[in-house]
Amino acid sequence: MTAYAELLSFQRETEALAQVMGRLGWDQETVMPPGSAGQRAEEMAALEGVLHARRTDPRVGDWLDAAKAPDEVGTANLREIRRRYERNRKVPASLASEIARVTSRAQGIWAEARANEDVAGFLPVLEQVVRLRREEGAALARNGDPYDALLNDYEPGTTSAEIAAMFGALRPRLVALRDRVIGAPEAPRVTGAFSEQGQLCLANEVARAFGYDFSKGRLDKAVHPFSSGSGQDVRITTRTNPEDPFNCIYSTIHEVGHATYEQGIDGRHFLTVLGQGVSLGVHESQSRIYENQLGRSRAFTGWLYGRMRDLFGDFGIADEDSFYRAVNRVSAGYIRTESDEVQYNLHILMRFDLEQALMRGQVEVRDLEEAWNERFLADFGVAVDRPSNGLLQDVHWSAGLFGYFPTYSLGNVYAGCLHRALRRDVADLDAQLSRGDASGAVGWLRERLQRHGGLREPRATVAHAAGFEPSEEPLLDELEAKYGDLYGL
Amino acid sequence: MTAYAELLSFQRETEALAQVMGRLGWDQETVMPPGSAGQRAEEMAALEGVLHARRTDPRVGDWLDAAKAPDEVGTANLREIRRRYERNRKVPASLASEIARVTSRAQGIWAEARANEDVAGFLPVLEQVVRLRREEGAALARNGDPYDALLNDYEPGTTSAEIAAMFGALRPRLVALRDRVIGAPEAPRVTGAFSEQGQLCLANEVARAFGYDFSKGRLDKAVHPFSSGSGQDVRITTRTNPEDPFNCIYSTIHEVGHATYEQGIDGRHFLTVLGQGVSLGVHESQSRIYENQLGRSRAFTGWLYGRMRDLFGDFGIADEDSFYRAVNRVSAGYIRTESDEVQYNLHILMRFDLEQALMRGQVEVRDLEEAWNERFLADFGVAVDRPSNGLLQDVHWSAGLFGYFPTYSLGNVYAGCLHRALRRDVADLDAQLSRGDASGAVGWLRERLQRHGGLREPRATVAHAAGFEPSEEPLLDELEAKYGDLYGL
Repeated sequence: MTAYAELLSFQRETEALAQVMGRLGWDQETVMPPGSAGQRAEEMAALEGVLHARRTDPRVGDWLDAAKAPDEVGTANLREIRRRYERNRKVPASLASEIARVTSRAQGIWAEARANEDVAGFLPVLEQVVRLRREEGAALARNGDPYDALLNDYEPGTTSAEIAAMFGALRPRLVALRDRVIGAPEAPRVTGAFSEQGQLCLANEVARAFGYDFSKGRLDKAVHPFSSGSGQDVRITTRTNPEDPFNCIYSTIHEVGHATYEQGIDGRHFLTVLGQGVSLGVHESQSRIYENQLGRSRAFTGWLYGRMRDLFGDFGIADEDSFYRAVNRVSAGYIRTESDEVQYNLHILMRFDLEQALMRGQVEVRDLEEAWNERFLADFGVAVDRPSNGLLQDVHWSAGLFGYFPTYSLGNVYAGCLHRALRRDVADLDAQLSRGDASGAVGWLRERLQRHGGLREPRATVAHAAGFEPSEEPLLDELEAKYGDLYGL
Repeated sequence: MTAYAELLSFQRETEALAQVMGRLGWDQETVMPPGSAGQRAEEMAALEGVLHARRTDPRVGDWLDAAKAPDEVGTANLREIRRRYERNRKVPASLASEIARVTSRAQGIWAEARANEDVAGFLPVLEQVVRLRREEGAALARNGDPYDALLNDYEPGTTSAEIAAMFGALRPRLVALRDRVIGAPEAPRVTGAFSEQGQLCLANEVARAFGYDFSKGRLDKAVHPFSSGSGQDVRITTRTNPEDPFNCIYSTIHEVGHATYEQGIDGRHFLTVLGQGVSLGVHESQSRIYENQLGRSRAFTGWLYGRMRDLFGDFGIADEDSFYRAVNRVSAGYIRTESDEVQYNLHILMRFDLEQALMRGQVEVRDLEEAWNERFLADFGVAVDRPSNGLLQDVHWSAGLFGYFPTYSLGNVYAGCLHRALRRDVADLDAQLSRGDASGAVGWLRERLQRHGGLREPRATVAHAAGFEPSEEPLLDELEAKYGDLYGL
């Protein structure tokens, strides 16, 4: 066997074991008995130990040095394996395991603190998490910027300067648009009770409409919607709220975006490092274009209105046009995940600024709540009324995920680019969507982007698919046009 | 850390990873999407590789040599770890992986051959399986008997001579009893259609009645009933047949016997080699006593009759006494798993004789069907009508499980001993069972046997629980009394 073949064979087993880890996570969130949590933690820790040993195994370094790539795919494989290997070798095993241990504990503490509106109860463990991730950032960055180093875990090849420039372009136009929309007359709301059975039926229907392959996946209920797994086993979850059917429907379409990306990757990348979505930003571009540009379009909501009338009868919305306005309703609110397309990226911008300051030591944990509340008032014009609507609303920081937030906005920006290109290439898209048929859009995305997995770097993946260099303009142009129309601006 | 502590810590991770492997098996049989089988095979192969490397890791040998047991539990841990380590080191890695590969493939071929009544299509792969397991038996036995070596994988410390002696005691009295029962007037049958919902409702109810802890387990549907996992996550499955409610009810009680054994083991054995049922025979003693001695007792079936009338209305059985006879109906049949208490062990005896001959090279695979059919006619007085009722009925040999069958009968014999002791110690057992309350029996079994896990060797485990040396007498006495009474002999 050549060094390249040996490396790929070793990596294939590592990827398979990583899939097992993902499966344990799925099991835990969907079917695991409540009393099994202690054992599951031991199982995951043991498997994490195996994975860490493989990911830092010196033989990988030897194979990388000796390997010759047979082709373009081989070159990409070696690039990505080397990136991961060098990243993992920089972090001492003791630090990696302490981060795993502390962040696992911190998530429980965060959940309890949020339930009790108890910031003080959360800050001590957050302080530990921040300290450990600063340390990790420093180890990864060597002499570079620690926040950039962490960001690269989620979005390889992207710097905080690029992210800052992106927000610099987004912010003024989004703020102006938000202010005009908030000043306009309110959009209608749906009313009534929406049965769980009806919502789940619709969730299955929209999942199929957006190309989800149930022969290699399944849809279950969970507390939080998520997509899990790669390759031939990519599962999604959803949840229902009797008063808000859109939560179930749009979180399902969102997760289907993530899942069909994984399902759509070419078989030649199966169980290689290229056989997954290439970055969080590109992943989010898929979930967002499915959810927003397609799912919340006038054409698709026209079809959805009919299906919802069939399933739920009258829910206080008289026609397709009012329904389209209800789906895309903008209102003031504290919670990022409940936000609309106009305000969502302003939430992310605030997180990005705060977490950069935290990681660079410009803000300390003890001052974080004050910093959050001041900034929220300045950005959103509303004072945070309680911690669960403020600092305690997101799980990310308790899990140590600093550098993760900006990938959400990057995904939105990429989705805007992809949508512009999709409209350019697929002429009768709206006619299809108005029949509840997303196959033209999904087929285009699969062919241009999804099937390539990690073959190209993240930004190049989007540029290849769109046919032009990504920028903020398509998203901003689209939002201004859509919400100008919706709110008669 | 002492060598003992290091060894236990290493073993704890190995046990946790073994639990992960079990979870993958559960997932595959219950919730896995149909198109994920290829990936799952890779995942399991990768994890099996990790487990095999740990199980034969030379550090285990070094720790074993250096370790001092701190107490009785430590002594048992070292004994069992050494047994497994020495066993695994005797089998070359290449042979172990070839067995895994071939038996995995063979099970698919067997299932197809059984569906097509195609013995010839199955024999070539069976030949490979037999060759590999003979080779493994020889490697394990060194200069001893290969069949005994294989038997020891499932029932440590038991020899084929002991099994032969057991069957020598069972056979004449079981044959005589069977012949008298078959000659007597037939017992009644239930008739009608039994809703799946009603059966699953009852399955949940009997699971609770027999002490299954749903906070550390769950009950799902699967093609074959099984119990999976140890410690804090022990899951069971069942199946339903609209015409035969007893299949669901009694397979559930059977699996609950396996599962509560695992759930009932003391916390001090958690994630050690002692934290599992000590052998297949002892495991089967628990499933069998739950299913037969308790579940098919006159007292318990009295309660069950009432519950079934509540759930299903009239099903052609007029009273508790007729119901007891219907539950314990004996009839001629080909299939081991559908057999009754009287004939079951005669099926096992035949498998035991045939597989011993196979492993010792006294019968070859090409002659196996003829040997089966001749023997079946001689033992059961009926000619096998088709392969799925004969050689192709059981999955075991395709999976390479030679030496496994006799543990079923051993379990029945142990169950007879435990039942005699249980009746001796719990005076009002029938009064409890007739209220659908098995807690007295389950509590006794947990205290005397289940909680000890692998602390003692298998036979000593049963002897300790019963308070006397196990023998065939209690089972035989009980069956003669029960069926004599049922059939008015």
